[in-house]
Amino acid sequence: MIFIPTPTATQALHDIQQGGSVQTLLNQYLTQVTACEAKVKAWQCIDTDTALKQAKSQDCDGSEHSGALRGIPVGIKDIIATSDFPTEWGTPLHQGQQLGYDATVVEQLRRAGAIILGKTTTTEYASGRATHTTNPHNSKHTPGASSSGSAAAVAAGMVPLAVGTQTMGSILRPAAYCGILGFKPSFGAISRFGIMPVNWDLDHVGCFARSVEDLALLCSVLMVADRRDPDCWAQSFSPKVKTLSRPPSIGVIRGPFWQQMEPQAQSALLAQAKGLITAGAEVREIELPSEFTAYPSHIEALVASGLAVHHRQDLLAHPEQMSPQLKAIVEKARSLHPLAYAEARRATLSYDRYLNSLFSHIDAILTPVTAGPAPLGLENTGSPIFCALWTLCGFPAISIPAGTASNGLPLAVQLVGQAKNDAHLLGIADWIIQGAIFPAN
Amino acid sequence: MIFIPTPTATQALHDIQQGGSVQTLLNQYLTQVTACEAKVKAWQCIDTDTALKQAKSQDCDGSEHSGALRGIPVGIKDIIATSDFPTEWGTPLHQGQQLGYDATVVEQLRRAGAIILGKTTTTEYASGRATHTTNPHNSKHTPGASSSGSAAAVAAGMVPLAVGTQTMGSILRPAAYCGILGFKPSFGAISRFGIMPVNWDLDHVGCFARSVEDLALLCSVLMVADRRDPDCWAQSFSPKVKTLSRPPSIGVIRGPFWQQMEPQAQSALLAQAKGLITAGAEVREIELPSEFTAYPSHIEALVASGLAVHHRQDLLAHPEQMSPQLKAIVEKARSLHPLAYAEARRATLSYDRYLNSLFSHIDAILTPVTAGPAPLGLENTGSPIFCALWTLCGFPAISIPAGTASNGLPLAVQLVGQAKNDAHLLGIADWIIQGAIFPAN
Repeated sequence: MIFIPTPTATQALHDIQQGGSVQTLLNQYLTQVTACEAKVKAWQCIDTDTALKQAKSQDCDGSEHSGALRGIPVGIKDIIATSDFPTEWGTPLHQGQQLGYDATVVEQLRRAGAIILGKTTTTEYASGRATHTTNPHNSKHTPGASSSGSAAAVAAGMVPLAVGTQTMGSILRPAAYCGILGFKPSFGAISRFGIMPVNWDLDHVGCFARSVEDLALLCSVLMVADRRDPDCWAQSFSPKVKTLSRPPSIGVIRGPFWQQMEPQAQSALLAQAKGLITAGAEVREIELPSEFTAYPSHIEALVASGLAVHHRQDLLAHPEQMSPQLKAIVEKARSLHPLAYAEARRATLSYDRYLNSLFSHIDAILTPVTAGPAPLGLENTGSPIFCALWTLCGFPAISIPAGTASNGLPLAVQLVGQAKNDAHLLGIADWIIQGAIFPAN
Repeated sequence: MIFIPTPTATQALHDIQQGGSVQTLLNQYLTQVTACEAKVKAWQCIDTDTALKQAKSQDCDGSEHSGALRGIPVGIKDIIATSDFPTEWGTPLHQGQQLGYDATVVEQLRRAGAIILGKTTTTEYASGRATHTTNPHNSKHTPGASSSGSAAAVAAGMVPLAVGTQTMGSILRPAAYCGILGFKPSFGAISRFGIMPVNWDLDHVGCFARSVEDLALLCSVLMVADRRDPDCWAQSFSPKVKTLSRPPSIGVIRGPFWQQMEPQAQSALLAQAKGLITAGAEVREIELPSEFTAYPSHIEALVASGLAVHHRQDLLAHPEQMSPQLKAIVEKARSLHPLAYAEARRATLSYDRYLNSLFSHIDAILTPVTAGPAPLGLENTGSPIFCALWTLCGFPAISIPAGTASNGLPLAVQLVGQAKNDAHLLGIADWIIQGAIFPAN
């Protein structure tokens, strides 16, 4: 475990409300940037001068402009449009790309008084080539992908909050590897207007933080109705975490890829399930029908097809600038069966129907999030397979730290809730963490 | 124009609230069934005995069980599951199919006290072979498809309300051909749980009625949150039609297929646009960019792929029971480019972005709904091309009667609103009809 000297967003806001200076607060985070960034390399682009000016201006304004995130520095994954910073999509092809407008999530953050400290690294088109970002717990290991920079920046305490995206497992996996909380709300809960698409049928916005109350706070700012994203159904979201009225009922799903996990990760999950029972939760194991073994091929077909059509112009014009990994994904898309996409959508409906019906008996699903701790090296960013099913079905999911592996790196588990019941899932996560069933870092 | 001797739902409810008998009311509709059904053939299955029993029981109950549609007979398209009637999907392959449960929309109707009079005809899998249903205005002409029976039953006055579905143009086209109102709310506004899929990315539930207030009433019952349809975002919908605070701003879009229209249908639309100006509306013409010419091929790829994957088992087991039309559609799906589906989804996003931006300047779009009046014969059910773009983008759309063609059959126009702003569109439609700009039948 690493020591993080900077406050959470909730602690920082409390400080400011008590009369603390935004500049003093920001300087704590900037000190941490100075201390860590050379090693962690979480930022694609950072502007401390502008951030300090904004902090100064907020200090002079007094309390009259008190947004929900007033003075809180936030990191933004570099596939999300910002009117000031370039938005480079993780590829040299779009180096210095100025989009000239803010994505809805950035608009919302600015409106709430947050300080956009900079853009965090992303893998190539949120998919291909890995970043040079390292895991704050051990720089020889990957922080996970594709929201690598957002996860690493929060885990290193350089910002208390960061925004990322998930199309397969790009919020939860890096959160798990970096030992922080990663929350991907329900599909459509946060607008994707202004965000580079991988596949619009799967793309989700998600959040990184170090406490559940911070996640709720950030979601209350990000969730807003937006007709510019046709799938967005957002309703107002409470910044206060709901307290459970009774211990939750939890279904444990090992899933079809349990055998691909490291034994220590399997043990961690089973130990957590036992801890839940001790804490008063009702816990039952649920075995998925065999049709679920096909979900990785379905989501891979959707992701590959989405990348191929959304970035075709780039591929045609500058194939030499594309990584071999990305070219392989697109090649795969071109050789799919003509009905592969439709079949993936049909299967998703069937999965959704089965899984949704479980929630008449349970409050949440406890399931693996990764095969083990962060892999060694920066090229292999780990497998999204344990996250992909829940992304496919659009269920809210959160990665919760669950102890430490033999090599000292974080382990984690995944908690999945019913679609459009995001607040309940955060309430359960908070109940678990408050009860220290899963010791958070 | 045909004379319809039965009341609208709103008139009937008023009658019942004034102490009128549900049985007497129902008998008026049943008399009309007796008078028309032999010629119109709108019903796949009808149960007058059960309906009469329900009416009697409602009369005995008194006013204590006063649902929003208490005593109102409704027709249900035969791809929508009912626990009592068979649900045959328009194919002999599923003759007598008992699904044993109610679709969400049927559940809602029963809860509101409506009387499910029977199942209305649908083309084969809501797509292929036409029905034997005739146009109530002239039995030598098609009523349109695929919600043929629902449109014809309402147009003939056999029921005041009916429920159908639209994947390309299956609500608005038959409503236009039959001279009634057909309303397809925004994508996801009404749950499709229990409804046979054509393509879940496109399928919409819609309503037939003879007044805007009846449509609002029916929508207030049908729109309910339902996690069993992952795309459903429904919120409570007011049964009262909103009165406009000022004359609306209307964009007229002839669209890329204007030249495929009969001159009399073109003239009708332009005359209506002039009528709107006279009534005080701000009217401007909008020309779509050239990329919109591709929308028919995109939606056809989605529909064909959806049918191919959802009904593959039937196709494999009993190809001899499939119509040549349906087999041709599925064959087409099998020969699509591997990226056709993804490309259609990408194009939809692009269309949506363009069209949605128009609504910062206008309240609604006035656009063609059909190429002309109902075609002669029952086999050719007309083209959905004028409705397909708005289905693709999930915008709410309503077909409004707009005079009579030279052969005495109804003409109509289409009014399209912004997604998730269904109530505003109904308000505009009501303003138009109340002003008799488009004389309703």
